[in-house]
Amino acid sequence: MGRRNNQSPDELVQRLLRGDRRAVARVITMVEDQAENTDYIMKMIFHHTGRSVIIGLTGSGGSGKSTLVDHLIGRFRAMDKTVGVVAVDPSSPFSGGALLGDRIRFQSHSLDDGVYIRSMGSRGYLGGLARATADVVRVMEAMGNEVVIIETLGAGHDEVDIIHVAQTCLLVLTPGMGDDIQAMKAGIMEIADIIVLNKADLDGANLCLRSLEATVHYGLDDKARWIPRVIPTVACASKSTGIKGVDELVNAIMEHQKYLFETRKIDEVMAKRIEQELGLVFKDEVEKVVFAGLKGTGKKRKYIESIRAGHTDPYSVVEEVLAMFLKTDKME
Amino acid sequence: MGRRNNQSPDELVQRLLRGDRRAVARVITMVEDQAENTDYIMKMIFHHTGRSVIIGLTGSGGSGKSTLVDHLIGRFRAMDKTVGVVAVDPSSPFSGGALLGDRIRFQSHSLDDGVYIRSMGSRGYLGGLARATADVVRVMEAMGNEVVIIETLGAGHDEVDIIHVAQTCLLVLTPGMGDDIQAMKAGIMEIADIIVLNKADLDGANLCLRSLEATVHYGLDDKARWIPRVIPTVACASKSTGIKGVDELVNAIMEHQKYLFETRKIDEVMAKRIEQELGLVFKDEVEKVVFAGLKGTGKKRKYIESIRAGHTDPYSVVEEVLAMFLKTDKME
Repeated sequence: MGRRNNQSPDELVQRLLRGDRRAVARVITMVEDQAENTDYIMKMIFHHTGRSVIIGLTGSGGSGKSTLVDHLIGRFRAMDKTVGVVAVDPSSPFSGGALLGDRIRFQSHSLDDGVYIRSMGSRGYLGGLARATADVVRVMEAMGNEVVIIETLGAGHDEVDIIHVAQTCLLVLTPGMGDDIQAMKAGIMEIADIIVLNKADLDGANLCLRSLEATVHYGLDDKARWIPRVIPTVACASKSTGIKGVDELVNAIMEHQKYLFETRKIDEVMAKRIEQELGLVFKDEVEKVVFAGLKGTGKKRKYIESIRAGHTDPYSVVEEVLAMFLKTDKME
Repeated sequence: MGRRNNQSPDELVQRLLRGDRRAVARVITMVEDQAENTDYIMKMIFHHTGRSVIIGLTGSGGSGKSTLVDHLIGRFRAMDKTVGVVAVDPSSPFSGGALLGDRIRFQSHSLDDGVYIRSMGSRGYLGGLARATADVVRVMEAMGNEVVIIETLGAGHDEVDIIHVAQTCLLVLTPGMGDDIQAMKAGIMEIADIIVLNKADLDGANLCLRSLEATVHYGLDDKARWIPRVIPTVACASKSTGIKGVDELVNAIMEHQKYLFETRKIDEVMAKRIEQELGLVFKDEVEKVVFAGLKGTGKKRKYIESIRAGHTDPYSVVEEVLAMFLKTDKME
């Protein structure tokens, strides 16, 4: 282990590109910690990415996302595709790293070399979670995964940022969320390519399905537009029998991918991903530079004291500090 | 309405400080949109804030947070204290504004002039949600609320940022979340001043209570430290009878406030709040300046094209752009 820690970034990149799982784990940890050389490594691997199918899967807690992901992994493995999974799990925002982690989730694939799973908690990243996740997706592509699945709870800014990195977006719902569905209607069109109604064996599923179908068809004036598919599934962790709809879901994903490539919308999607990543890296780096500067000088403490004493306020302080950091003649 | 929209920021501030609800609503909307003059108004009202009791309440969906807040409002009103509530509701990240909003939540206090409630969704803010929420808390203080309650789902970075603005932090749990509690143990000490075990009439509540009690007492070496109180409550929206534990909860809040002032820890808490706000405003403003610059010049589009064409990568672009914006001789 000691030797490994001392190896050069270039060696690490070479091993990562060959799919060496330890190198991958090491780089992901570097990404999470924003360790030295991380940017160098990310630059090196960047050109080995951008060819994977990236699936985003979002839905509230208890909707059965993890179980669905488990089934999706199984289906993609049956097609002999390698799969990477980034499970963003903000269930505990109170401590660093992922808590339930890889040990509990996705047990059935833990011995499969064609599957690489990483859980990410919502805290403990020097940079933002969204930026770290976007970078980890790139790492998973660079190590050779043909499919990368991003799973998130879908609540909060970070997670919405993350999901925009995906090409095909799945929104997982369950019956009996009447109000929520009403509330989401406005936004469903905007983000979901496929709506999964999981636990479709529950009461009210049919009504819910009809309502969703009506929603996705509503207001379509553009014939070339993708109409979000609504797929009922039964994928429950406690019922090993009676899995339903997963094949249909995989078909819908394939169909959407085909649509993206045939209509060349994939170009837009890829451009948007880069724009999103650019924004995330940007935000992170600006914060790092500016905050590091403030920290070093002990000025921050003085500002806080001065605000508490009533001599100034946070808004004026920020103006003052920005004037110190930002060039006034920027971007001519 | 037309006349109101044209009034000067100073008039608006004067009306806000007198508790005029329309002026408050107007300023909150300005904060959400980061409208012109918002900073000016925030500076003006800042010195009229910092004297309210600020309570943060966090917990997962379905734990009964809103019902608890409803009861807390009732108790504080019975003490003749005015109450402001900021309910951060990221249940739908997919569209702007709060969806279920004030109409459904907290109905019982909708006609009380001593209560001001504002829901905030997780999207549609030009600045970040956390920054907007911190500013709205200041607005609620400036309008004269003696107590301000911040309610959040507690999942995600933004919300953890928000909760750090509070002086007394309540974590709402329910029985039967065994794994979650285990998972949270590490972090409970860090953030919660009071742990509310709601739905304490459910199976497993006693076991859960004992486990929580053991957790909060674990590893206490510092005698001057606040030992988080664990309060069982039954506060269910569907049961109008049988409310339990809310008085104890209010007592625990009062006790914690007393502790803060007696030990002078309130100074630390207030300093931390300012530090937190400084960070949030900072982050927001930096992004605004830098992104506005990029947008205007159309350079962003060129960068994206260049990355897609394989000529560069997001990390190198960010370096390049930062070099344009940031002074190299910063902070000597």
